[in-house]
Amino acid sequence: MTNAPRHFSALAKRSSEPPISWLMKLALDRPDLISLAVGFTDNETLPVEEVGALTRAILQRPKTARAALQYGTTIGLLQLRRELLRRWQKQDGISKSRITTDDIVVTDGSQQLLYLVSEVLCDPGDIVIVEDPTYFVYLGIVEAMGIRAVGFDSISYLKSKLDDLKRRRLLSRLKMLYLVTYFQNPTGRTWSLEMRRELLAIVKHYERAAGHPVYIVEDAAYRDLRFEGDPAVAGFKSLDLRNERVIYTNTLTKPFATGFRIGYGILPPSLGRAVLRSKGNHDFGTSNFLQTILARALAEGVYDRHLPIIADGYRRKRDVMMEELERAFGCSGASAKRRNSDAMLTICASQKRGYTNTEEGVHKALFNKPHGGMYVWVELDPGVNTGVKSRLFKRALDAGVLYVPGEMCYCNDPSRPIPQNCMRLSFGAPTIQQIQKGIRLLANALG
Amino acid sequence: MTNAPRHFSALAKRSSEPPISWLMKLALDRPDLISLAVGFTDNETLPVEEVGALTRAILQRPKTARAALQYGTTIGLLQLRRELLRRWQKQDGISKSRITTDDIVVTDGSQQLLYLVSEVLCDPGDIVIVEDPTYFVYLGIVEAMGIRAVGFDSISYLKSKLDDLKRRRLLSRLKMLYLVTYFQNPTGRTWSLEMRRELLAIVKHYERAAGHPVYIVEDAAYRDLRFEGDPAVAGFKSLDLRNERVIYTNTLTKPFATGFRIGYGILPPSLGRAVLRSKGNHDFGTSNFLQTILARALAEGVYDRHLPIIADGYRRKRDVMMEELERAFGCSGASAKRRNSDAMLTICASQKRGYTNTEEGVHKALFNKPHGGMYVWVELDPGVNTGVKSRLFKRALDAGVLYVPGEMCYCNDPSRPIPQNCMRLSFGAPTIQQIQKGIRLLANALG
Repeated sequence: MTNAPRHFSALAKRSSEPPISWLMKLALDRPDLISLAVGFTDNETLPVEEVGALTRAILQRPKTARAALQYGTTIGLLQLRRELLRRWQKQDGISKSRITTDDIVVTDGSQQLLYLVSEVLCDPGDIVIVEDPTYFVYLGIVEAMGIRAVGFDSISYLKSKLDDLKRRRLLSRLKMLYLVTYFQNPTGRTWSLEMRRELLAIVKHYERAAGHPVYIVEDAAYRDLRFEGDPAVAGFKSLDLRNERVIYTNTLTKPFATGFRIGYGILPPSLGRAVLRSKGNHDFGTSNFLQTILARALAEGVYDRHLPIIADGYRRKRDVMMEELERAFGCSGASAKRRNSDAMLTICASQKRGYTNTEEGVHKALFNKPHGGMYVWVELDPGVNTGVKSRLFKRALDAGVLYVPGEMCYCNDPSRPIPQNCMRLSFGAPTIQQIQKGIRLLANALG
Repeated sequence: MTNAPRHFSALAKRSSEPPISWLMKLALDRPDLISLAVGFTDNETLPVEEVGALTRAILQRPKTARAALQYGTTIGLLQLRRELLRRWQKQDGISKSRITTDDIVVTDGSQQLLYLVSEVLCDPGDIVIVEDPTYFVYLGIVEAMGIRAVGFDSISYLKSKLDDLKRRRLLSRLKMLYLVTYFQNPTGRTWSLEMRRELLAIVKHYERAAGHPVYIVEDAAYRDLRFEGDPAVAGFKSLDLRNERVIYTNTLTKPFATGFRIGYGILPPSLGRAVLRSKGNHDFGTSNFLQTILARALAEGVYDRHLPIIADGYRRKRDVMMEELERAFGCSGASAKRRNSDAMLTICASQKRGYTNTEEGVHKALFNKPHGGMYVWVELDPGVNTGVKSRLFKRALDAGVLYVPGEMCYCNDPSRPIPQNCMRLSFGAPTIQQIQKGIRLLANALG
């Protein structure tokens, strides 16, 4: 799979090039290319003036300036962790819990938190359950660490799979479920509170057979990128106030300045300690300068005042992408809507039957017009192959437009076939004109 | 060793709390404490105005501002890698080599590069050779990854050890040598060019029996923190212009703004590719904003103009620490000087016999008055125990002064005893007054 030499480690041999690396490289190397692929954020709404003002304020006083330019602690800046705790309490409506600033670890993007948690929990052969489809960069970690991934797209399938693991005496190898819970990458779906409760109950039930806590990693990376609908539902962490089972991770990057790469996790104490010990070896602390800027951005409300500006930009782009998709595929309203029994993940859109335009239903979570995040998941006719080596991908690239083949977003679970007819489109980075042109080129490539 | 629960990974179970984490925490939690322990840098000479001007320049133009606040690539900003390549060529006097910007990876401090290289080369049970003593944070990586460490303090011992490994058919498990080559942490020693040549020849000799390249990781973290003597000698990388065997790593953090945490590595291509694949999983790229600031700092000469300012500060502090040590221990000049056969690592200083004040000899490398870096290594009488649980460490802490027990700087090599009578003192962070008071308190604690 990789060309790592024989004398490299098992991890190196398992690590293929992460798709994100070549997608980013393709996009940066061909500035003419319209990238509907990478999850870059909107250039127009980056907080240029805000960062300028915050930086000036920090650097103009010798005391704050020197503290910002000096090393910090491995766990992260206390002022920032205080702001993050407050923010989580407010968003989840929590007045009292066992969670303190000691349970929060600041990391180099939320990606580093995912790496650290996986690394301290999983040995090769251990099992992690992920959504089908899921965030493909997390699948790179799974592959590199030799973790066995199990995919699910409905609660009923999850239960049958857990029963199967129990029967095969494999539950002791199950370490965690990785879930992208708000405006999911790639499907745009949000977990309802009822679904969260149900999942948590299931996990607790099977834990007895596992013989140890089975953790839920809640990746809330898109939570603050909401541009429509009611305030997002409370997270899994609000159902775990004793802080025993849920790892909450989020980023301060996507809804503000992606060039910062600052994320964080709220973790159960024993797991937090293990993550911290490992982070001590990784880098012994994230940039204190960036943490100082973000702590101030949160404390002074700059961050929250910037959110609606970003939201406006994304909503407008989402609308344009929807319009173009409807035009290109001859939308016929809700005619092609499909659901499966618990309707968790199914997205529908097809070239022939028209693009489906359903309302968001938090409980049913049948998304395709996302109310947040930056992704539209397109399911084409079963016969259409969207893969990296497909005719369509090549034709699209030749025409000057890049998308993420849906196959990249599925884990390597031998018990499940990987759909070949999906694609992830992002309206984050491209301009409105690029979205319009990109979707048209894509429709032409479909021919 | 750790309290990681049974269901955590083998890595988590092997990872004890890195000493740096609690040293940093102790120092930050007790602001009254005089820390001669942590490797924080000098507060007074941090480039506050410089960072302000660079940031303003970047943010005032929308194009550069947006690029800086947007994601970058996993490998790092091209402008920065160009500057780093130029800088290395200039410092090592190289006009032609196989090394290009594609061989440079920007990381979250050089620590992350050390983690990545170790991770892609080593499986548990593999062998890494380190200096005795060495940078203790690297030893945390060694422990967590289950790497067997072999320590050496002379070329002759190294040879005998390699012969021993060969006899025991263990050379195939030897992956790399980790060396801090300029103003070493903790001894202040610099490797001479002759010694480098000799070591490289030895490595090449034993490589045949190993059956694969044995890499030399050259950690040059203190190279730019030179405040006395001739320009530092060329690095190991200058002896590896075909880019096959040496990993050069350095930081832009220590000699500029530690709060940035930006390092980099120059690596042989196959290793660079593996490191990049793994970095894609770790965080898929270091802060583009910080990289943009540093690229500009290098391109405009801000970085290089700042070096003498920092050097002046450190030289002055080094002198004060020397004076105080001489006063405290009744220095008798060079009387207590000792050498071993190839004089690579021996440092001498003793309470009774007086503190030794020898000139730097790059070839002999018998340091204790460092010409760069920020550390003084003190060897006390054999009967004095400096360990974490010693009477001395506790007395010093009670008196309000913190040092790094020398024992922390030795790898866990069962074939070698760990000296108990050494300490690492840093003059990086404390003020001149704190150094004076700190050494006096330390001398009192010694009783």
